[in-house]
Amino acid sequence: MKEYSHEIRVTYEQTDKMGVVYYANYLRWFEVARTEFLRAEGLSYRELEEKGVLLPVLESHCNYHHPARYDDLVKLVTKIKDLRRAKITFEYEIFRSEDDKLLATGTTVHPFVNSDFKPISLKKKFPQLWEIIEQSFDNKN
Amino acid sequence: MKEYSHEIRVTYEQTDKMGVVYYANYLRWFEVARTEFLRAEGLSYRELEEKGVLLPVLESHCNYHHPARYDDLVKLVTKIKDLRRAKITFEYEIFRSEDDKLLATGTTVHPFVNSDFKPISLKKKFPQLWEIIEQSFDNKN
Amino acid sequence: MKEYSHEIRVTYEQTDKMGVVYYANYLRWFEVARTEFLRAEGLSYRELEEKGVLLPVLESHCNYHHPARYDDLVKLVTKIKDLRRAKITFEYEIFRSEDDKLLATGTTVHPFVNSDFKPISLKKKFPQLWEIIEQSFDNKN
Amino acid sequence: MKEYSHEIRVTYEQTDKMGVVYYANYLRWFEVARTEFLRAEGLSYRELEEKGVLLPVLESHCNYHHPARYDDLVKLVTKIKDLRRAKITFEYEIFRSEDDKLLATGTTVHPFVNSDFKPISLKKKFPQLWEIIEQSFDNKN
Repeated sequence: MKEYSHEIRVTYEQTDKMGVVYYANYLRWFEVARTEFLRAEGLSYRELEEKGVLLPVLESHCNYHHPARYDDLVKLVTKIKDLRRAKITFEYEIFRSEDDKLLATGTTVHPFVNSDFKPISLKKKFPQLWEIIEQSFDNKN
Repeated sequence: MKEYSHEIRVTYEQTDKMGVVYYANYLRWFEVARTEFLRAEGLSYRELEEKGVLLPVLESHCNYHHPARYDDLVKLVTKIKDLRRAKITFEYEIFRSEDDKLLATGTTVHPFVNSDFKPISLKKKFPQLWEIIEQSFDNKN
Repeated sequence: MKEYSHEIRVTYEQTDKMGVVYYANYLRWFEVARTEFLRAEGLSYRELEEKGVLLPVLESHCNYHHPARYDDLVKLVTKIKDLRRAKITFEYEIFRSEDDKLLATGTTVHPFVNSDFKPISLKKKFPQLWEIIEQSFDNKN
Repeated sequence: MKEYSHEIRVTYEQTDKMGVVYYANYLRWFEVARTEFLRAEGLSYRELEEKGVLLPVLESHCNYHHPARYDDLVKLVTKIKDLRRAKITFEYEIFRSEDDKLLATGTTVHPFVNSDFKPISLKKKFPQLWEIIEQSFDNKN
């Protein structure tokens, strides 16, 4: 199964008065993580939307193991956990770059829909895009 | 000149590691302030957009006098500072409700445009809406 | 089991280019939901922190049933789902006020810690606060 | 006068239902811009805070020339516009990387204070830090 790592830096804005990153911001990082994962696979989410394929979020989950702090470099590691005709599940691990400490893990589930939020079969409508995603999700390896 | 006051409560998310509200969040409050001001005048910004009138932001300015803190109630006071055919300027004052301490002041400037971001004459296209705004901006009083 | 309802209005800032509320913002609403729930029970989270009791987030989960849209009034319904010596689980339901349509459901899990993020026994250190929370979590009703 | 350029990518979260970047987010970018500018000059804002020097925001200003859109690469160009004993002014220009179109310009003003928000003389207390900043602000070049 392929996975992809992308590094970002924690901004001041993402912290809260506890001195650590506010919990909702990890979901903003998950967005960056899956977008860069797809880009690395040759798939631009912007182009996907321009073709009429949207991946809104059905479900999100996050476990917070250790707080991220201001100015930390964090590594977003992403893979496809599950792939069905109608939906895709991404899995994320967030590490502090400095010492590879695991800060958070999570998943998000996304249906394939059109711009009216109606389900579409990516496999039928865009077989080439489907193939790219399917190759990214390769259970045997 | 009419002014309108709307109260909100500072959330944890809006604070940063300095223990005070992050500076960009005052612009989020300005949005709430002008929306509620217009609503109080009988004008829903949502309906305005549905009619094809958008008020993007051309310019923003904020002076930070005293920090807002977590769980504070703050009062957003809004008025129209200037009104031209092509654009409108809102002025804001933010007070801590508890003791009326002035926390911040600011302005935002907005052109009247259509959904393609092309300038429109609100006065010509929607005279009734224009009249409501013009009455809100009443220099003599 | 007691539950508490608090209403908020969707801001422009919370929307994204899909025209709906961005998924991470529901977690910001969960924060408002549990804070106002505790306040209604006579417990200020700000005071809790001033006493040295912090409730960071261990885990968050959200199911997105139907998108919230700009300017919607939404109702945040909160209750305590589980209460242990070391941690508390809140459960949330978010409804569109206009027609009571269920938009999202979720949970967050929080340990009781001190300002060094070390676990504390709320029951031992602050028996009165514990009692308030325990009464809010009343399984028989 | 030295200036520094740092590139970031527009996220979905930063957009709003107008399909463009929400106006308050430019101030979040200004934060990234000045932090990376200082880092490039050999000055970590995190370390500055650890030494007890804070740079809260006194004033912010932004002119929005052209909207940034989802997935755009944008270039944040920063310089020190003014330097006084008691405060520093940063100036920002934001360009779309693809075609160097100017999207926004702005300034932020920051006092030098200690962790109690009391003014300090950086020049007296931390002459070496002051020197770094003074060299970054070099009007003759």
